[in-house]
Amino acid sequence: MDNTRVILDCYGGDNCPQAAVEGAIEALNKDNTVSVVLTGKKQEIESLLATCEYDRTRLEIIDADEVITNDDSPAIAIRHKKNSSMVLGLRYLADGGADAMVSSGNTGALLTGASLIVKRLDGVTRASLSAVSPQVEDGKYVVIVDGGANVDCKAEMLLEFAVMGDALMKSCYGVDNPRVALLSNGAEEEKGNALTKEAHALLKESNLNFVGNIEARYLMNDVADVVVTDGWAGNMVIKASEGMALNMFELIKRNIKSGGLRARLGYLMLKPALRGVKKKFNSDEIGGGIFLGVNKVVMKAHGSSSAKAFCNAILACAQAVRNGTVDKIRQGLAENAHLKQKENKA
Amino acid sequence: MDNTRVILDCYGGDNCPQAAVEGAIEALNKDNTVSVVLTGKKQEIESLLATCEYDRTRLEIIDADEVITNDDSPAIAIRHKKNSSMVLGLRYLADGGADAMVSSGNTGALLTGASLIVKRLDGVTRASLSAVSPQVEDGKYVVIVDGGANVDCKAEMLLEFAVMGDALMKSCYGVDNPRVALLSNGAEEEKGNALTKEAHALLKESNLNFVGNIEARYLMNDVADVVVTDGWAGNMVIKASEGMALNMFELIKRNIKSGGLRARLGYLMLKPALRGVKKKFNSDEIGGGIFLGVNKVVMKAHGSSSAKAFCNAILACAQAVRNGTVDKIRQGLAENAHLKQKENKA
Repeated sequence: MDNTRVILDCYGGDNCPQAAVEGAIEALNKDNTVSVVLTGKKQEIESLLATCEYDRTRLEIIDADEVITNDDSPAIAIRHKKNSSMVLGLRYLADGGADAMVSSGNTGALLTGASLIVKRLDGVTRASLSAVSPQVEDGKYVVIVDGGANVDCKAEMLLEFAVMGDALMKSCYGVDNPRVALLSNGAEEEKGNALTKEAHALLKESNLNFVGNIEARYLMNDVADVVVTDGWAGNMVIKASEGMALNMFELIKRNIKSGGLRARLGYLMLKPALRGVKKKFNSDEIGGGIFLGVNKVVMKAHGSSSAKAFCNAILACAQAVRNGTVDKIRQGLAENAHLKQKENKA
Repeated sequence: MDNTRVILDCYGGDNCPQAAVEGAIEALNKDNTVSVVLTGKKQEIESLLATCEYDRTRLEIIDADEVITNDDSPAIAIRHKKNSSMVLGLRYLADGGADAMVSSGNTGALLTGASLIVKRLDGVTRASLSAVSPQVEDGKYVVIVDGGANVDCKAEMLLEFAVMGDALMKSCYGVDNPRVALLSNGAEEEKGNALTKEAHALLKESNLNFVGNIEARYLMNDVADVVVTDGWAGNMVIKASEGMALNMFELIKRNIKSGGLRARLGYLMLKPALRGVKKKFNSDEIGGGIFLGVNKVVMKAHGSSSAKAFCNAILACAQAVRNGTVDKIRQGLAENAHLKQKENKA
């Protein structure tokens, strides 16, 4: 059987290497069509593996004695830490040793490395980070592209983000004809800043199912499957939402504490319901964000990824490989390339 | 006694004119140092007032038979609807008939009208909208400037926003030495887009208590008293937070419904605690956002303002007048003007 091979960078995250190694084992045991290549300090990894049960024919280790940390400058780290778990993984991926890679390490370094080593697809100005979030409706998801990789963008980049997000939702989330919306400060067409007004015109001419502008208020309310934005506003809406969710839980907790016995009893009875809400927004479920626009599937897992998150990240990458996400992106870019040429001439 | 005179535009909001008129009466009865000037259809207003008890010597009506709606284009509406409740109010304010004005009508029109009729202060490129929000810690507030008025900004405008937000927190929220932070995609100085990197350098040279960058995640977590941003990201973080809060309540409700009797009983017992959280984020408490950078206090009240919100808006405006907010802004701008000249020469 032809396995899907996923590289896992076992270093760089908060709970590494333990959570990474455990997540890999979990993935191997859950899906026997997946093989895993672990990169990192071989001795440490082997000692963690010693007590685990798994199919040894589907696991490989690439010894790497360096680690890229969050304090490293991305471009310098990629150039100089040649024996790091991240760089060796990316090289192995680029050389065809595997189909996909997951890392919970330095986001900027992973983006730079993916762009320089795995290389960008033709027609991609910059690789972007896809941020998938659950919607309020169960079983529905929305992807925000760019989720924070590119803080200064041009309109044609937003068109690329839209095409890539569309391909992701089609290939990995089973959405037939994704609704693509442009993040703006109002739903009306004339709303927006200089960048989004230009992007709006481009998106209207694309072959995508462009449904117009979306306000940050409605990101999770089943208005769109793909939300297009520069990485600046993308970062803002994601971080603000995250902050608000955490603040709400904190405030509920404080109000319960000061609410006396009645509130505490109520809390005990309501706990499963509140846990349901918390679970929905738990980043472990999604695994991470795929960098769109490079030649292979590269996923950034959350820095604080647990074993479960690593497992889900590996399985999500394998699915993206099987469903041909990169090819679908390539195709979408080709179909809309004429719009960018027009834009550049203008 | 010298009363503080506040104009209230009784039209343009969702619950107008009724909520506006009721809010005015509430304000008059709460604070006998305030006088109110109502603008709008005199007959309608008078019939709403007929059954109310209040000190008639402190209420005046300016008859205005036109209404600026949210569908009106701001600049055109201000120029052509000369007999609207908004334009007549702004003219009366500019002519010295009152000290401040509140309107729940078309935000863009109010901003344009305030800038053109009441006029900008010397040294202000564009008036901005201050968005005050409660922090997680009780009794603490943070102001986001610009909260959405200017979607395309230059670095020197962000310096102006900072100076104006600082003056607002000093004069109206009793913060002695406001911590001013720049909204960015990371706390480190080197993080940011082209605009914020330039603004960062300017803010560092200012006489403000600049504490560096703040991520959207920590807006309400007592890191800063003033958060400076262009109106684009300002709109994004405000709307995303609002959306997340509403979605959380919706999800809790759904999980309770599907959680059976136990969850429902728990909910009943926990209700007061949840209500406490909801109340904290109720926009009625704040009243509205002051447009910073014009010659008088002009406040935009929420389109859906209730009587209570209008009352709080009037009282907040009166306080800003008494505390000399506009003068403090003028002073701050003068103290930092040399930085902008330097920036313009560069």
